[in-house]
Amino acid sequence: MSNGAALPSSVERLIEALSRLPGVGPRTAERLAFHLLRTPEPEALALAGAISAMRANTRPCAICGHVSDEELCRICRDTSRDLGLLCVVEEALDLVAIERTGAFRGRYHVLLGAMNPLEGIGPDQLKIRELLARLDDEGITEIILCTNPNTEGDVTAMYLARLLKPLGLRVTRIASGLPV
Amino acid sequence: MSNGAALPSSVERLIEALSRLPGVGPRTAERLAFHLLRTPEPEALALAGAISAMRANTRPCAICGHVSDEELCRICRDTSRDLGLLCVVEEALDLVAIERTGAFRGRYHVLLGAMNPLEGIGPDQLKIRELLARLDDEGITEIILCTNPNTEGDVTAMYLARLLKPLGLRVTRIASGLPV
Repeated sequence: MSNGAALPSSVERLIEALSRLPGVGPRTAERLAFHLLRTPEPEALALAGAISAMRANTRPCAICGHVSDEELCRICRDTSRDLGLLCVVEEALDLVAIERTGAFRGRYHVLLGAMNPLEGIGPDQLKIRELLARLDDEGITEIILCTNPNTEGDVTAMYLARLLKPLGLRVTRIASGLPV
Repeated sequence: MSNGAALPSSVERLIEALSRLPGVGPRTAERLAFHLLRTPEPEALALAGAISAMRANTRPCAICGHVSDEELCRICRDTSRDLGLLCVVEEALDLVAIERTGAFRGRYHVLLGAMNPLEGIGPDQLKIRELLARLDDEGITEIILCTNPNTEGDVTAMYLARLLKPLGLRVTRIASGLPV
């Protein structure tokens, strides 16, 4: 930032923190900071409080890795779901997008990323061991690989397909009609 | 939001708070919330802390209305500025944009908005009385009207020009070459 001496340091620190958000450049960060400066104080503090509260009150679901406020997420607690059907996604955000369609009645497994050898992300950096452990425990018969339709997602899906098919599971890759 | 039962309430509250920011729709708010969920906790809490700290440590400059961490902002404290020259802007953000050019050596007056009769914003809702008070006190001889190049900004500039010219001041309107 080249604001020089024009802004108090607390404003510059907020602009810096905002510009670390994905898709937020320095000018957008500046505009957001000035909005938070002019907006009524309770609204600005509500945003700050909502960030802290979310970090304090959530954890990964012990079964699927989705964000949860209890040991198990709402989906894993829902016994009306098809327990034999599992959808493997990269991120909780992908799960939310699929849930929004209302078309899937199974449960999920969140990998927390995709394989990317250039960045040193291999199978061990993803929740693949946890996925294999679930297969035995939960009587899963069918897996849909919903990793993202890009190189990393495709590589991850291929790796998982080779790993899972010999175990006698029905394994499919989602068609790329899903908006990501 | 139609996340249904998929997300803990603390995540939904953060998405809601984020979507009140200007230019942030529900999908962007969702992406930002999940980023704040996955990012290391200190980084997420640093953003929350930066918002609270900015609100606690800033106030409007007693002279010009710019954001400040002391009674007077850094520009009004700077005695090397041309004290007879005043630039009138709508918002502190406009001031920052002009300062970034490094081309203006006078001081500023922040109106905190522009006239907009349809929304009930007339001269009394802006810092125009404060502007008039400064003219006598500070020996100002020249005023540049840098309100935004839109209807509200033009109306405000015309109103101010009619008000200020009879007082014997040199009053100009900035050309619309300034990116806004």
